[in-house]
Amino acid sequence: VQNISIGNYLLERLAQLGVTSMFGVPGDFNLGFLDLVEDHSKIEWIGNCNELNAAYAADGYARVKEHSIGVVTTTFGVGELSATNGIAGAFSEMVPVLHIVGTPTTVQQRAKPILHHTLGDGRYEAYGLAAAQFSIFQANLKDKNTAASLIDRALTECIKLARPVYVTLPMDMVTQEISSERLKVPLSRSPPPNDQSTEEFVVDLIAERVKEAEGDVVVIVDACVIRHDVRKETLDFLKKTGFPVYATPMGKTAINEDYERYGGIYIGTITHPDIKKKVEQAKLIISIGGLQSDFNTGNFSYKIPTLRHIELHSTHTKVQYATFAGVEMKQLLPKLGEALKGLHSLVRKFEVPPFIKALPKEDTPVISQLWFWPRLSYFFKPKDVIVTETGTSNFGILEVPLPAESVLVSQILWGSIGWSVGSCLGAALAARDVGLGRVILFVGDGSLQLTVQEISPMLRLGLKPIIFVLNNSGYTIEKFIHGKKRKYNNIANWKYAELLNVFSEDDKHKSYTVRTKDELSSLLDDKAFASANQIQLVEVIMDPLDAPRALKVQTELSAKSDPYKERK
Amino acid sequence: VQNISIGNYLLERLAQLGVTSMFGVPGDFNLGFLDLVEDHSKIEWIGNCNELNAAYAADGYARVKEHSIGVVTTTFGVGELSATNGIAGAFSEMVPVLHIVGTPTTVQQRAKPILHHTLGDGRYEAYGLAAAQFSIFQANLKDKNTAASLIDRALTECIKLARPVYVTLPMDMVTQEISSERLKVPLSRSPPPNDQSTEEFVVDLIAERVKEAEGDVVVIVDACVIRHDVRKETLDFLKKTGFPVYATPMGKTAINEDYERYGGIYIGTITHPDIKKKVEQAKLIISIGGLQSDFNTGNFSYKIPTLRHIELHSTHTKVQYATFAGVEMKQLLPKLGEALKGLHSLVRKFEVPPFIKALPKEDTPVISQLWFWPRLSYFFKPKDVIVTETGTSNFGILEVPLPAESVLVSQILWGSIGWSVGSCLGAALAARDVGLGRVILFVGDGSLQLTVQEISPMLRLGLKPIIFVLNNSGYTIEKFIHGKKRKYNNIANWKYAELLNVFSEDDKHKSYTVRTKDELSSLLDDKAFASANQIQLVEVIMDPLDAPRALKVQTELSAKSDPYKERK
Ligand SMILES: Cc1ncc(C[n+]2csc(CCOP(=O)(O)OP(=O)(O)O)c2C)c(N)n1
Ligand SMILES: Cc1ncc(C[n+]2csc(CCOP(=O)(O)OP(=O)(O)O)c2C)c(N)n1
Ligand SMILES: [Mg+2]
Ligand SMILES: [Mg+2]
Repeated sequence: VQNISIGNYLLERLAQLGVTSMFGVPGDFNLGFLDLVEDHSKIEWIGNCNELNAAYAADGYARVKEHSIGVVTTTFGVGELSATNGIAGAFSEMVPVLHIVGTPTTVQQRAKPILHHTLGDGRYEAYGLAAAQFSIFQANLKDKNTAASLIDRALTECIKLARPVYVTLPMDMVTQEISSERLKVPLSRSPPPNDQSTEEFVVDLIAERVKEAEGDVVVIVDACVIRHDVRKETLDFLKKTGFPVYATPMGKTAINEDYERYGGIYIGTITHPDIKKKVEQAKLIISIGGLQSDFNTGNFSYKIPTLRHIELHSTHTKVQYATFAGVEMKQLLPKLGEALKGLHSLVRKFEVPPFIKALPKEDTPVISQLWFWPRLSYFFKPKDVIVTETGTSNFGILEVPLPAESVLVSQILWGSIGWSVGSCLGAALAARDVGLGRVILFVGDGSLQLTVQEISPMLRLGLKPIIFVLNNSGYTIEKFIHGKKRKYNNIANWKYAELLNVFSEDDKHKSYTVRTKDELSSLLDDKAFASANQIQLVEVIMDPLDAPRALKVQTELSAKSDPYKERK
Repeated sequence: VQNISIGNYLLERLAQLGVTSMFGVPGDFNLGFLDLVEDHSKIEWIGNCNELNAAYAADGYARVKEHSIGVVTTTFGVGELSATNGIAGAFSEMVPVLHIVGTPTTVQQRAKPILHHTLGDGRYEAYGLAAAQFSIFQANLKDKNTAASLIDRALTECIKLARPVYVTLPMDMVTQEISSERLKVPLSRSPPPNDQSTEEFVVDLIAERVKEAEGDVVVIVDACVIRHDVRKETLDFLKKTGFPVYATPMGKTAINEDYERYGGIYIGTITHPDIKKKVEQAKLIISIGGLQSDFNTGNFSYKIPTLRHIELHSTHTKVQYATFAGVEMKQLLPKLGEALKGLHSLVRKFEVPPFIKALPKEDTPVISQLWFWPRLSYFFKPKDVIVTETGTSNFGILEVPLPAESVLVSQILWGSIGWSVGSCLGAALAARDVGLGRVILFVGDGSLQLTVQEISPMLRLGLKPIIFVLNNSGYTIEKFIHGKKRKYNNIANWKYAELLNVFSEDDKHKSYTVRTKDELSSLLDDKAFASANQIQLVEVIMDPLDAPRALKVQTELSAKSDPYKERK
C-alpha cells in the first residue's frame, strides 16, 4: 500500500472530481498546504484579491463546471470569516463548494494560546460554529486515522446535496502520511434509489392526471434542474412527451431556449400576458426542480392551483395535495417519460408561443433598458456563458432568449451584489475547462464597486471576459424599491473605462464607454470586439431611473408591502 | 410624554454617544431606516463600497473617537454576513461597534417565506446564530414595548465592555412610535464599583511589593489602557509615582512617546537589548491593561517571572500568583497612585533609556525598511493619526517614536489584512470630529488589494489622508513566515499611483511613486505635501525581501515551530 500526505490525499480527491482551479488567499495557517497545491500537476492556485471574492469565484466555477465542485481555501479566522457571505450564498443557491480552512496545529487547538486571528478568549471553536449555519457537513482533520474517510464523507455530501462543506486542516496534519488505498475507489454521486413501489405508484398517478388533462399539460423548469443535475433527463422527458416547456428566472437556460417547444419565462404576475395565459390555463402543470422564492415567482404570484400542479423535486414528488417522500426526479423522469410518450401526438396539438428576438424601435439615441437587452440578444452566440448581477441586469436578461448551449449564471435567490464579478472569474476558468465560449458579464456600477478588484486575477490569468458595466449612477433597483430621490442610493462615479489599465501589467486589454445606441451597436458589430480575444470592458451609460419591464413590475408588487410607503 | 419612532430613538441614543457618522451599505431591508438617518441632523450616512469595509470603518472610527462607538448598518443576510470578519475583529480587539441589521418584517419573521437573501429553508435565525459568536449582546427589536430598553441595554453593554453588539431592526418596526421618556436619562458608562475591602487589601499588597522592590519598578502599558479608557488614569499614576514606562506594540501611544519617563517598546525577545534588560531586570513589573497575544509579546517570549509581576486589568487584578476578582484598574489606579506617590524621589533614581529618533546612514539609494521608518519619524507631527496594516508596516512603526498626542491605530491581535483601508476612512472622520491632525495610512500592496475600493468614499467625502502604499511586489511578511520563493506569495503589480484618479470625480488629489531615498525625502520635505490639504497617495517601491528588524526576529521565532520547515 502506498502512502500519501493528508494534504495530497485531499488534492487527489479533488483532481478526481475534475477540479483544476483552487481559489483563495494565503495566510500563515495555510501556507504549507499551498505548497502542495502549487506543486500539484492538475490543480492551479488562483490567488484571489480577497476571500469573499474567492468564495464567489468558487461558486461561479462550480455553477459552470457541472459534475465538479468549487474549492476555496482560506486562513483561520480572518480569512474564513471574510468568505461567510459567499459560502452562505452557495448554501442558499445549492452550489457545491468546499471550504478548506488552514488552522493552528492540533497542539495549539488543545492549548488555545492567544494567537493572532483568535478572539483573544480561547474560543477556537467559534468560527466553526458560525460556519455550521452555512454548511451541510464539517470535518476537522485532526486525526490521521480518520482524515481520509472524513475527506471522502465531506466531498460525497458536497456533490450529492450540492451544498457547501467545511473542512479544517491543522498546520501539523498537512504532511502527515496516510494510506492512499481509498483513492482507488471513486466517490459515488448517485442518489439513494427511489423506493420502487412508491415510484411505480407515483408514475401511474401522474399518468392518470396527464390523461385526464387530455394533453393540455405544461412543464415549468426551475433552479433545481440545473443544481441537481437533471438537465439531460428533463430534456429527454420533454422530447418524449412533447410537452410545452417554460422556465422560471432561475431555470433559464436549463433547457436550450431555441428548443422548439420552449415558450419563455414564467414568473407569476410579471409574466408576459400571452405566456401567462398558456401556463396558468393549462389543465395540468408539471414543475421540475421548483424553487419558489420571491424574485423567482413574481413575489409569490403564481396562479397555479394545487389541484392542477405536480412538482418533481430532488428529495420528493408532489401530486396535487399528496407528498411522496423519497421519490426523486433524476430516477423518476425517465420512467415518467416512458409512461407518457404515447401522448406525444395529442400533446403536440397544443401550440407554444415562440420566444424570439425582436428589437424595439426607439427614437432616442439614449441606451434604454428596453432596447439594450434585445440588442444584446443579437450579439450572443451559442456556448456563451452569460453572468448577470442582482439589479437591472438580472431582470433585463429575462426579456430575451439566449442561444443554444449558452449558460446563464445568476444568483436570484441569494442576491448578494458584487457576486457576479468573482463568479465571472470562476466561470471563465470553468468555461475554459469544459469548452464553452465567450464569458460575458453584466454588472451594475453599484455592484461592481463591492468586488472590483477581482478583475485583477482575470487580467493576471489572461482570461478574456467581456465586462459590461451598466453605469446608471447608482443603485437603480433600490430606487425602484424605495428612496427614488434619496442620496443613499447614489454612488461615486468612477472612471470605469480605466480600471483594466490600472489593474494590468501589459496592454492586452481594451475598454470602451458607450453613450448611444449607435455607439453600442457598432461596437457589437465589430468583429474584433465580438471575437473576445482579449479582456474587454464596456461602460454603458444609462438613465438612473430606467429599468427593465420585469423589474418595474416586480418592484411595484413589493412596494405594495413597503412598510415605509408614506415616507419615500 | 412625547413620542418618537423606534428608528429615531436609536439615532437619538447614538447622537447622545457622540456618533456623527454611520457606516454601511443600503439594502431592501434597511432603506426605511436609512430615510431616518439621512434626515437626521447630527448623523451622516457614509455609504461604503461594501459591508466588510464598512465594518472596518466603524472599527477605525471607534478607535479614534474615544467615548463614542462605531456604527455599521447592513441588510439581512447578504449584507450582515459580509461584515462578519470586521465585527469579529472588533470583538477580538475590544472595539465598541454596533451592528444594525435591517430585517424582514415581524410578520415575515414568523411566516418565514423564501424571500431573497434567505437560505431557502426558512432558517431566519441562522444569521443571528452566527453573529452570536462575535457579539456580547443581541437584540431583535420586534416588540415596541421592549424596543427602547433593549436599545439602551445593547448600547450600555457596547460602551462598558468595548465589544460589538448586534441589533436587528425589522422593516415594520422602524417607524413605530414609542415614548421618548427614557432619552432624558443618559446611558451610564461607569463600571460597577470595586469591592472596597478587596480594593484596599490589593492597594496595601501592591504598596508592600513596591516597597520591597526599593523603587526598582517598571510599568508596561498595553492594549487595554486604550480600549478600556484608562489613558488618563495611567498617566496620572505614572506622574505621581515616577515609574519608568514601556509600551507593548498594542499599547504604543497609550502614553505619549515623548513622555520623559517613557522608554520605548517591550516585546519579549524581540525587544532592543537595552530596553529588554531594563524591563526584565526590574525587581517588579506592573502591567496595565495587558494583552498577551503572540505578535504582542514576541511569540510569548516575555521573561517576567510571576513572582515579580503585577497585572492590572479591566475585570481583575493579579499580584504575583494571586487573582483578585472584581478589582478593576480604572478605579484602582488613582488609589494606587496616592498610596505610592511617596516613593517618587526614590523611583526617579532609576534611569530610562531615551526613545529617540535617529536616521541610519545607508549607502544605497534603495528605500530600505531600516531607513524608511526612521525617515518617516521626522515627518510625523503632534496629533497625527497613524494607521498601519498587518505586514511590514505594523512592525516597522514599532521601531520609531511617535510625536506627542499622535494616535497609532493598528490591529495586531486580529490581523486581518485590508482592515487598515476601511479603518483609515473611519479614523479620518473621527479625527475631524475630535480635532486631531493629519491621517497617515501605511498599507502593503497585498493588503490594499483586499479593500482598495474604500479609497472611493474618502475622495467623495473630501477627506485628506496621506496613503503610503508599500509596494514590495507581494506578501513579504508571509514570505518571511513560509514560502519565500513561492508563487502564491506574489501578487499582480497594479498602477497604484493611478487609483485616486480612477475613483475620483475631480482633480483634488495627488499621487506619487518614489523609488529612492532622495525622492522620498524631497517629497516629505515639500511643505505642500506635508500640509495634507488634499488626499495624496505615495507608492513606495521597496525590495520584496526586505523587512523591519522586529518582523525578521518575530518570524525567525515562529519559524522554529513551522511544521512544514522541510518543504519551504
Ligand atoms: C452584499 C449586498 N449588499 C447590499 C445589497 C442590497 N442591494 C441590492 S441591489 C443593490 C443595488 C445594485 O446597484 P447596481 O449594481 O448599480 O444595479 P442597478 O443600478 O443596475 O439596479 C443593493 C445595494 C445586496 N443585495 N447585497
Ligand atoms: C483577511 C486576511 N487574509 C489573509 C491574511 C494572511 N496574511 C497576513 S499578512 C499577509 C500579506 C500582507 O501583504 P502586504 O500587505 O503586501 O504586506 P507586506 O508585503 O508589507 O508584508 C497575508 C496574506 C490575513 N492576515 N488576513
Ligand atoms: Mg446601477
Ligand atoms: Mg507587500
